[in-house]
Amino acid sequence: MFVDKLIEKIKEKKNPTVVGLDPRINLVPNYIKEKHYNQQQDKIKAETKAILEYNKIIIDTIKDIVPCIKPQIAFYEAYGIEGLKVFKETVEYGKDNGLIIIADIKRGDIGSTAEAYAKAYFAGGFVDLDSVTVSPYLGEDSIIPFTDFCSQDKGVFILDKTSNKSSKDLQDLEIISTDKENKIYHVMGHLINKWGSSYIGRYGYSSVGAVVGATYPEEMKSLRRIMDKAFFLVPGYGAQGGSAEDVVDAFNDDGLGAVINSSRGIIGAYQKKEYQSKYSEKEFYLAIREAALNMRDDINKELKKCKKLAW
Amino acid sequence: MFVDKLIEKIKEKKNPTVVGLDPRINLVPNYIKEKHYNQQQDKIKAETKAILEYNKIIIDTIKDIVPCIKPQIAFYEAYGIEGLKVFKETVEYGKDNGLIIIADIKRGDIGSTAEAYAKAYFAGGFVDLDSVTVSPYLGEDSIIPFTDFCSQDKGVFILDKTSNKSSKDLQDLEIISTDKENKIYHVMGHLINKWGSSYIGRYGYSSVGAVVGATYPEEMKSLRRIMDKAFFLVPGYGAQGGSAEDVVDAFNDDGLGAVINSSRGIIGAYQKKEYQSKYSEKEFYLAIREAALNMRDDINKELKKCKKLAW
Repeated sequence: MFVDKLIEKIKEKKNPTVVGLDPRINLVPNYIKEKHYNQQQDKIKAETKAILEYNKIIIDTIKDIVPCIKPQIAFYEAYGIEGLKVFKETVEYGKDNGLIIIADIKRGDIGSTAEAYAKAYFAGGFVDLDSVTVSPYLGEDSIIPFTDFCSQDKGVFILDKTSNKSSKDLQDLEIISTDKENKIYHVMGHLINKWGSSYIGRYGYSSVGAVVGATYPEEMKSLRRIMDKAFFLVPGYGAQGGSAEDVVDAFNDDGLGAVINSSRGIIGAYQKKEYQSKYSEKEFYLAIREAALNMRDDINKELKKCKKLAW
Repeated sequence: MFVDKLIEKIKEKKNPTVVGLDPRINLVPNYIKEKHYNQQQDKIKAETKAILEYNKIIIDTIKDIVPCIKPQIAFYEAYGIEGLKVFKETVEYGKDNGLIIIADIKRGDIGSTAEAYAKAYFAGGFVDLDSVTVSPYLGEDSIIPFTDFCSQDKGVFILDKTSNKSSKDLQDLEIISTDKENKIYHVMGHLINKWGSSYIGRYGYSSVGAVVGATYPEEMKSLRRIMDKAFFLVPGYGAQGGSAEDVVDAFNDDGLGAVINSSRGIIGAYQKKEYQSKYSEKEFYLAIREAALNMRDDINKELKKCKKLAW
């Protein structure tokens, strides 16, 4: 079961966090970019090669302390074919280094098309990923082709209450219901429970999880109550404004049930004042490691205070 | 304006339809597949090359009678890098042959990530498309990075009421509202109006359109009332069960406002009994042409009866 592997990896590293690999080119250290601009006339090739080198250094830097990475495919798609090659190489390098991959792809389409996407990402058509995010606007028949793969050790995180400001436009609408918790994200929570009920692993969690943003702590509490078995993928910590206090209620009382993501906050740490004074640009990876350790310790401290540590 | 170009192309061809290029390998004629299996040891390369040849023959066959094509990217992504190369080549071949491209990508992500996707599909990062479909689960900030490109002659079709069976799971939920038309797809209709209001072209239509399935004619009528300026992209005609009678209310009284898609029903026509008796496998393109003409005539006949012909 995917979720069991995820939990075991979190326990092994004593760290319920994930590093988002969203490689905007302005996050890549200049010395790496310049090297590739000098080696390659083609700008796309130079930048994608620079991104791959950057990603590999990040993976080398955090692989002993972090359980998973979350590459956001949009930043690779933005470079077309060359970018997607780097996405694949990054994923494979991460897997080879023992990291669990949560690919942020947010695909969502009707049945037979969803099957094509699932083939692309779970059956090696394009890559062979551990888990992906999917978008639920089209309902159950857009989800099942992905969750069907949970019986083959794959995991699915379904968007529920996302971290962005305008998540309210649709997700916060109140439906006519006898249930007091009547927002769309509540309804989605119940659906995610249903879709995940056949894939419960040995620790009581499902391989069908939910994306719940750190930026809405109250909403998160209500979703934790509704979905006691879903693993939460929590974006929005760090650069987007979520704190350890904001994310602690994503966890159950057993100290499990969530993995907290930070992207820019970790991979761009060396550009922040607090690290710039300590590390040179060529030591950017030391800033990344320190930021990743700080995030781990920050969340573990809060977890110990409010829930318990599962390790 | 994208929508003006679309309308002019529809008027020029006297045909408000779009052919969906969803190249499942079992739709590709055997003689094409066998040729490429013989030329290529690598299965992926053979199949993607077969698909490209098939797509090009389809485009050659319909380019004088149909205004647009709608490639569904999932079927290309399912083949990874080789498939995505064929997606790009197909799109470029279609554009070179004067067809408007509606790429069915259904992307949807938070602000800065949506910008990366828009860069990929509208600014040539990956390809340079005329229009795309997007998914609205994340709300306005996931949409604006795409609609911003409408000022640069691009078009966006936002999922509203989709053609699949489980579209009801989310899209049909009733929200608390003083409005009697209180389903999620109604709410989305009003949002699509708002997002499209700055991009109205010379015929009174917006470059921000809506995806509304042919399989729900009553829902379509109510959405046509709510969104008088949005162009509807209508999947679900043909293979999915929608008839000309079902789709006619996607049009306004001026005979404009919708483009009706058929995918398998056209590109797989030669596999249907009615065409198999007339055409050999190597004449599959004649079956495709006849099916495309039949679709055009079927819809125009109904339009003439219930609305008017705009040409």
